[in-house]
Formats: sequence, structure tokens, C-alpha cells
Amino acid sequence: MRIPLDRDGDEPLFRQIERWLRDDIVTGGLPPSTRLPSSRALADDLGVSRITVANAYAELDRDGLITSREGSGTFVAAPVAVLPHVPVSDGQSWPLWQREIRGSAVEDIAPSRHPHPDLIAFTGVGDPRMFPVNEFGRTIKEVLARDGTGALEYGAFDHGYGPLRETVVQLLASQGIHTDARQVMITSGSQQAIALTCQALLKPGDTVLVEQPTYNLALDLFREMGLAIVGVPVDEHGMRVELVEDLLQQHHPRLIYTIPNFQNPTGASLSTARRRRLLSLAARYNVAILEDDFVGDLRYEGRALPAIKALDHVGQVIYVGTFSKLLMPGLRVGFLVADGPILEGVGVLKQVHDLTTSPLMQRVIDRYVTVGRYQTHLRRTTRAYRARRDAMHNAVREFLPSATVAPSHGGLFTWLHLPGPVSTKTLVSHALDEGVDFAPGHRFFANPTDGEHFLRLNFATRTPDEILQGIQRLGLAVDRALEQRPGS
Amino acid sequence: MRIPLDRDGDEPLFRQIERWLRDDIVTGGLPPSTRLPSSRALADDLGVSRITVANAYAELDRDGLITSREGSGTFVAAPVAVLPHVPVSDGQSWPLWQREIRGSAVEDIAPSRHPHPDLIAFTGVGDPRMFPVNEFGRTIKEVLARDGTGALEYGAFDHGYGPLRETVVQLLASQGIHTDARQVMITSGSQQAIALTCQALLKPGDTVLVEQPTYNLALDLFREMGLAIVGVPVDEHGMRVELVEDLLQQHHPRLIYTIPNFQNPTGASLSTARRRRLLSLAARYNVAILEDDFVGDLRYEGRALPAIKALDHVGQVIYVGTFSKLLMPGLRVGFLVADGPILEGVGVLKQVHDLTTSPLMQRVIDRYVTVGRYQTHLRRTTRAYRARRDAMHNAVREFLPSATVAPSHGGLFTWLHLPGPVSTKTLVSHALDEGVDFAPGHRFFANPTDGEHFLRLNFATRTPDEILQGIQRLGLAVDRALEQRPGS
Repeated sequence: MRIPLDRDGDEPLFRQIERWLRDDIVTGGLPPSTRLPSSRALADDLGVSRITVANAYAELDRDGLITSREGSGTFVAAPVAVLPHVPVSDGQSWPLWQREIRGSAVEDIAPSRHPHPDLIAFTGVGDPRMFPVNEFGRTIKEVLARDGTGALEYGAFDHGYGPLRETVVQLLASQGIHTDARQVMITSGSQQAIALTCQALLKPGDTVLVEQPTYNLALDLFREMGLAIVGVPVDEHGMRVELVEDLLQQHHPRLIYTIPNFQNPTGASLSTARRRRLLSLAARYNVAILEDDFVGDLRYEGRALPAIKALDHVGQVIYVGTFSKLLMPGLRVGFLVADGPILEGVGVLKQVHDLTTSPLMQRVIDRYVTVGRYQTHLRRTTRAYRARRDAMHNAVREFLPSATVAPSHGGLFTWLHLPGPVSTKTLVSHALDEGVDFAPGHRFFANPTDGEHFLRLNFATRTPDEILQGIQRLGLAVDRALEQRPGS
Repeated sequence: MRIPLDRDGDEPLFRQIERWLRDDIVTGGLPPSTRLPSSRALADDLGVSRITVANAYAELDRDGLITSREGSGTFVAAPVAVLPHVPVSDGQSWPLWQREIRGSAVEDIAPSRHPHPDLIAFTGVGDPRMFPVNEFGRTIKEVLARDGTGALEYGAFDHGYGPLRETVVQLLASQGIHTDARQVMITSGSQQAIALTCQALLKPGDTVLVEQPTYNLALDLFREMGLAIVGVPVDEHGMRVELVEDLLQQHHPRLIYTIPNFQNPTGASLSTARRRRLLSLAARYNVAILEDDFVGDLRYEGRALPAIKALDHVGQVIYVGTFSKLLMPGLRVGFLVADGPILEGVGVLKQVHDLTTSPLMQRVIDRYVTVGRYQTHLRRTTRAYRARRDAMHNAVREFLPSATVAPSHGGLFTWLHLPGPVSTKTLVSHALDEGVDFAPGHRFFANPTDGEHFLRLNFATRTPDEILQGIQRLGLAVDRALEQRPGS
């Protein structure tokens, strides 16, 4: 038996022997019942002392990988699992309980694996190329130097890292939300804040009122929870609040879910008058408001509108924000602001669901924001995205003249209405053939067929040149789809 | 108006002026309707150009913090929220829906804030002082250098970072679990894996069979979900499986939750014969098994026992593991191995609950493990914890001679039975007075009064010297509690 040994390295020889044998046993190179050389024979072979081999064998024996039989030698042990891996595709043999599993209604939103060599995808959230990864790496290093292993301990479970909660309070003050750190809870992204709030408030069969269209993964969550979803149409001033009172009387929802700033997917912002009216309706009909402010900071023109939470003096509104959209999606740190028993309820759910959000990421974001890097990044990002939004609007006017573009003064998305016979769900495959991807409208409607002639374009992830080229391709895809439809 | 300016710094003067005014407005130093000096007057005051002040005012105006009235000057704007912050303690005024919030039954497990100057807490999970924070920081740096912003993108939602899932497969192979990466899902710690599995499988009113005692936060989760909890007593070989069949017939549970290795809190390991018997009972009665292997790697003597999942050839077992206990709790990365529809169900729930687990942490852990740092760390940790376990057992024999110590060959915990009139719930406050903390037994029982004479000590977080001193203090606390009980 030949085992390559590094006699000048740091790793003791017995460890090298052990590791080599272990790998061979685990990967099947040395099958069960293989007889190993005696420790004396292997020691001679390798030119090491017998005790070195004996030590390696002892470690493997301790882990149950080899067995020694008195007088007859040392053998590779039988593996604890003797049968091969369960065949994944054989659905016949699953236990009965496996046939009653919840959760299978969600469309796969993984990026398309279409083989176009140069796909321009108007999907995703922010542009990773904008993110100052070096500054971020420096911030991590500073935090680890400052806090040591403390940066990786659970910390107290009480609603997140204290200084970050204080920092959130400061950020919110400039948006008119006057709160204190006790009302702030850190979550694993805003998605978790939404999910926990719904779990604390709602049970299967309850009704939720949403903008129509709205954020697809909120719809998926509501569906998964077995909620009834009632949509309120959106115009250029956001949710048409004048329709809400009738719906409240008719459907008795227990929650109103709204994205008042640069709504996903329409980009519309709810006017201040509508914000006030919605809040007063919610109070009168005893319905909670879940305010999802996922990109409120990304404003390209006009005045900031007050958060609904800033108008709330009785604890009617649960406000949700995130660092994911502006900084990087992978940070997975969001927050929630609430008053009253709901905050404690969500806190308990958070604890039993995942104990706490990454303490290291919480510390890093806190430092990143407080040393002013966030504000600088925000300014730079806003400037770039504004230009991209304009490029998108211009390109659509030029290459998709039949489309109607929803006006938008911030955020990430352009929402198009594409009249005519082609559904955007069908258009996707033509678009992929031309080398462009987008989010078809049906994903954003409680009743998917309502979205057949809409599509959402993320302008933030692409440069103006890419936008021009991508929309040109989309124009070609529309022509192609029109040509190929049955009966044309 | 005097604004301190740093003329040699990096920050432009207009930003300094803007920031100073913004802070004053937000904190109330400049109340609404305060008239600001004209840009010319302030420029003269500060010795800067008029355009500098005008730029600062423009930024504040853009954010709605000041308003200019033609001909009459510039004023601090009325805040969008005119009423003060909702008083947190005034429970009378909450909206009615706030009275029906779920989730309030969980005991606060935050570390005690007792003022003992030198508290020895036998609580927590692993010892942060063992964690090689510098190596970890280096790994983060390497990953950011290698992957750039890619390390912070969502990536595909499909069950986690591919290479880490492959690495988990390799780690599991040495434990006898032969699986492939398609069956592995990355979660935000094992707590999330447990919570999602329960949500995919169970609905309120369903019954879960657990070891008695068992992990307190699993009990909290089951309670929060409205499940009925049926306990099976534990002896030195783990769950008394011979009692399970009667309980299956009597209570029709839909899930068996078990911690087969170094159980929390008892430290007992389920014998191989019992593992096989439990699996065959679960198959016969159509019940899923959730196998929580939270510290299976931390073995101090004896052979590794096969995971129940390694014996499962039909998809009966959902296996849950974590990097939190061994490395650092704050990593918040765990994993789940399952076959059949349950995996897809859990995947959908994961997505609507928090989209994905920190992609950066997934990459960092993958690199940390694959470059061999994990194995080195494991060896070092095991050696240290073994000595601490021994120190704990010796100290208990010396200073708590009336206590019975449950035998344990790995993990983090020593489980004590303390006979006599004093409940461990009462003992806690005496212990804190003496400067020692522990987890009272009632937390680990479905019926808390069953745990009154038990307590759990974490030996892993403290050095042998600290353990000696802490248990000495605990002995004094017991004496004190005996003296002070009513009627003594």
C-alpha cells in the first residue's frame, strides 16, 4: 500500500495516513471487509515507525471505519447504511404521510437556464455591480477586530442587536417615523418580517386585502398560508383607496398589505391623502396594516411622502423595511417596527423559527451605516438608477410603441401594459430566444389570468446600453410572438 | 447660527452644513416653523460661499425637512408625524385586533441580568473562546476576494449554495448517511429546519411524540403551533422505545421528534437497537421521524452510532444538522436531509419565509470546512470539551453529593437529578445570588412540573477551574435554598 506522505509539512504523519485511508474508505476505494496490512507491514512500506501506523488505525477504529479481529487482522468495517441511496424519482414507495405535504403551489422563480450566450435579464433586485464589496469586506474586518468572537455569539434574543436597532431608529427619523429601539425588531430580510407578521395575525381561511397587482412572493406566502386574497386595483397614485370600504364590509379582511412607495410591480406611490384615508378606514374596521417599504429610499424625484406608520398614533400599522434591496440582497437583514402586543407575538415567532438573525451581519450593517458609508452608497446608487429608469422609459417608447408605461419616481421596476393578442406568459419563451428575460405579469395577481398583458422590467440591474439592447430584443420577441400565434 | 465646519476634512462643506441642520431638525433642536437664516446671511456667518449654503438647503428641501415660502424665507417644515410616539405601556388604546395575537407563552431565555460581578453561567451552547475568529475572518476575506459581489447575491433559490450542499454530503458520508446534494437543503440554523419541517407536516391539534425531557425551544415551537405534545421517558440509552408502540396506538402522532446523539438536555444516546426499532415502528404506523443531530460530531469516547437516517431506505426520516453548535452559534447555518415530497414542501416554505440563508455565510462555511479548518477545529474542541465534561462530573460528585448525574459520552450538557424538597426553579435565584447560572429542568418538559428536580449544566462554555468554582457555588446555593424554604 502506497500512501504519499509529506515529511516536511505541518500535518503529523499519522494524520496523513489516517486521512488517506479515511478518504479511501468513505469513497469506496477500500470496500468493506478489505483486509488492511498489519501496522508493522504498513510501517515498513511507508518507512515510518509502527506506532505512527497504530495511531492512524486507532483513530479509524474509534470512528467505526475499521475493525480489528483478534488474531486475524484489521478490516474495513461494514458501512452503517448497507442499502443504496433512496432513488429520488421513485414516488411509489414514499410513506403515506409524504402524500399530505403542504407547499407545492409556488412557481419556480430561479433564473432561467436558457442557453442564450448573452442574456439580458431584467429580473432580480438591485445591481450587484454597484455594491462596494471592498468597503464591505473592510467593515467585516473592522467588526471582527472590534468584537472578536462576540460578533458570532447569539447575543440576547430580544429582537436583535441593540445598536443596529438604534441605527434603524435614526434612519426612520428622516422618514418621519418617530419611534424608539424597543419598537424595532431585526429580521432575516423583509420577507421574514412579512411572514412572521402574517403568522402572528392570521389563520387559514382569513382574508388579506392587497394591491392588485402586488409582490409575487407575498402572494405565494398568502397562498401557502391558506388565506383568501382580495385585490384592490392600483392607479398612478397607488391603491384605489376609494374602493376599500366596500371591500372591508364585504370580505372582512384581517390584514391590509400595502407597498406604498414605488410599489412592486407597478412603481406607483400611494398619495398622502390616500395614506390618511386608508389608515382611518383600517382603524374604523379594526384591520391591521402591513406597510412594506422595500425601496422607499430609492427616490429619483419629488418629495418623500410620509410613511403610513408615521401617521399612525394607535398601533394600527406594522412597518417593514430592509437593507437587502439597497445594499445587497444577500445580506438578509430587514426590520419591522410595531407597537402593542403584535410586536411581542412576532418576537416569539421569530425565536421559535430561527432564534436570531446573523449577529455578524447585524453588526456589519450597523457599522456600515453609522460610519456614513450607507448614505454615500445611497446617493451614488440613486444617481445611477435614475439614469437607468430614464433609459428604460426611452427604450420602451422607441421599441415597444404599443406598450403603456406606468409612471414611477423611484424604486427598481418599470411596469408595462402590452395590449394585443399575446400573453406575456407566452412572450417569455420568445424573449429568451432573443436573449432577454423579464417577469411576466401573471405572477403578481391573485388571479393570474388578470396579469396576462402586463410585464415587469427591472431597470436597476442593467446599464443604459444593456437596457437599450434588451428592449430592442424584447421588441423583436413581441413581433415573433405575433407572427407565430395560432391563426395569424 | 454657528455651525462647526471642518475645512480640512474630506466631507464637502455643504454636506457638513446639511448634516448639522438635519440632525438639529430631526432631534427637535430646531422645532417646526423655525425660520432659518437666508442663504446669504448664513454664508456670511460661516465664511463660505452662498452656493454652498444653497446646496445644503436644497438637500434638506428635497427631503421635506425645510420649506421655502416665496418672499418670506426658509422654515423648518412641520414633521409628518405630529403626535408623539405611541406610549408603549398604555395597553388600553390598542386596536381590538391587537388583543388576539398569537405567541406569548415562551419563557424569556435571555441571559440573566443579575448583577453578580463574576457570574459563572452554565448556559449557552459552545465556548466562543474556542472559536478561531482570525481564521474565520481570513476565510471571509478569501471568499470576498474569490467571489466578489457574487458572494452577496441571492443565487438560485433552490435549496442553498451548491458547493456547501456537496460539502454537507461529504461530512455526512463519514456518519454513514449516503445521500446526494439534491436531498440537502441549507437552512438558517437547525431551528429553522425543525420549524419548517413541522409547518410542512403538521397543523394545529396534531400530536408530536418527543423525548421527555427534550430541547426547550422545540417544545416552545410545538406549543406555539398548537400541537399536542406526548412525551416518552428517557433512560441512559435514550428514548425508551419499548413504550412507543402503545403511545402510537393511543395518540396517533404525526411526527416523532428525537435527538438521538447526546440528547438535549440529558446527554443520553439512543442505542442502535432502539434506533432500528423506532424506525420500524414509525414505518408501521406511518409517522415521520425528525432526527435532530445537533452535536453528533462532539463525541468524547465510544463508537459513533448510525444516524437513524442512515438506516432509512424509504424516506421516513428528516435529518437535521447544524454548524452552529460546533463552530459558533451566530453562524446561523444549518441543514436538512430528506427524501420525497417533504423536501419540496420544506423548500417552498423556506422561500416564502425568508427567501434564502445568507449566501455569504454559506460560502464562508463551505470554504472553512473544505480547506480542512473544520476538522482541525473539531479535534481541538473535542479535546477541550472532554476535559470539561470530566471536570463537571468530578465537581458535582464533590460539591453536590446528593445529585445523580446522567452518564454522557459527548455533547454539551450534564443533566442532574437533585432530589429533595427544593425545586430547581426556586434554586435559580439562590444560584444567581451565589454567582452561578444554569437551566432549570422545568423548561425541558411538556408538563413543566415534571422537571422540578432536574437541572441542566452546560460544561462546554467554561474552563475546568471555572467549573470547579461554579459547582462549589451551586452547592452553597442548594444549602441556602434548603435553609430558607418555608417550614425549615
